Amino acid sequence: MNTEYQSPPSTKPEPDATGGTAAAESDALLKDLAEQKDLHLRLAADFENFKKRSRQESEARAAAQKESFIVELLPVIDNLERALAAGALRDPAQFHQGVEMTLKQMQQLLHRHGVESEEIVGKPFDPRRHEALSQGHDPAQPDQAVLEVVQRGYQRGARVVRPAKVVVNDLTLSKPARHGR
Amino acid sequence: MNTEYQSPPSTKPEPDATGGTAAAESDALLKDLAEQKDLHLRLAADFENFKKRSRQESEARAAAQKESFIVELLPVIDNLERALAAGALRDPAQFHQGVEMTLKQMQQLLHRHGVESEEIVGKPFDPRRHEALSQGHDPAQPDQAVLEVVQRGYQRGARVVRPAKVVVNDLTLSKPARHGR
Repeated sequence: MNTEYQSPPSTKPEPDATGGTAAAESDALLKDLAEQKDLHLRLAADFENFKKRSRQESEARAAAQKESFIVELLPVIDNLERALAAGALRDPAQFHQGVEMTLKQMQQLLHRHGVESEEIVGKPFDPRRHEALSQGHDPAQPDQAVLEVVQRGYQRGARVVRPAKVVVNDLTLSKPARHGR
Repeated sequence: MNTEYQSPPSTKPEPDATGGTAAAESDALLKDLAEQKDLHLRLAADFENFKKRSRQESEARAAAQKESFIVELLPVIDNLERALAAGALRDPAQFHQGVEMTLKQMQQLLHRHGVESEEIVGKPFDPRRHEALSQGHDPAQPDQAVLEVVQRGYQRGARVVRPAKVVVNDLTLSKPARHGR
């Protein structure tokens, strides 16, 4: 640390110094103390400036990251617009295919940003990542298996961005219940 | 600032102090100096910790802002998926309408985040916000008017997120040229 205080070796008072030497000693110490105090004030000012600047920089950075995601989203929106504009002129199958491609691009965009969705039908219900909307009864599936995904869930690594809303198999139900809401 | 150094009033040396008093003075000053140095070291350590923490917080904040945008985008993706899933079963007009709604939601999402697109056909070409892909010739429009938008432009306030790619009217062209790329 380059601002750290270093006592000059000469300022240490001799045990039997005269009053004059001791007074000179005191003057030197007062000078050191003033310097040290000045250093401290400057560091405190630097610290305050840093706090202010880093707050602004943090805001700018967050805005830039969001904007760069939006810039990547724009071509997907363009494609959806183009598909819609051409939709009336083309055959429905081609339109359907165009929209399907848009959806795929959207999922690829999320993927590039680490956000993914899993296929969970038939897999065990996981309360940390799934939200049970209702119970179903399907003897062909294991108990507590996900029977249906009502709303897709998304994760970024271990973090749940949005839990999946699901229908869960409950083999203890006496009568088979209908899936769904 | 609560860490600012305050010299105790008693430490100012008297002009005709004895050696003993002066030595005591020096001891007091040395003690003050040590305290001041300690204060400074602690502030420097706080500063370092703050820098480290604020870098982490800034990253976390940027990630959270992007994620909250993505969370708002997910329902739009859901709707596109639903429209596609139902598309084959419904009549093409209804499917077209469903996709149109998805596009509208997407534009509303951008709007909520301050990102907007203008209708610029017929308006004067603005090189700060538009990129001229080619010239056209339309005597019914003013010179340098935007004749066609090949790719929509987006802005956030005064900031250009993406320039619009356009065909510009050029009445100095001797022969009418076809619009488009």
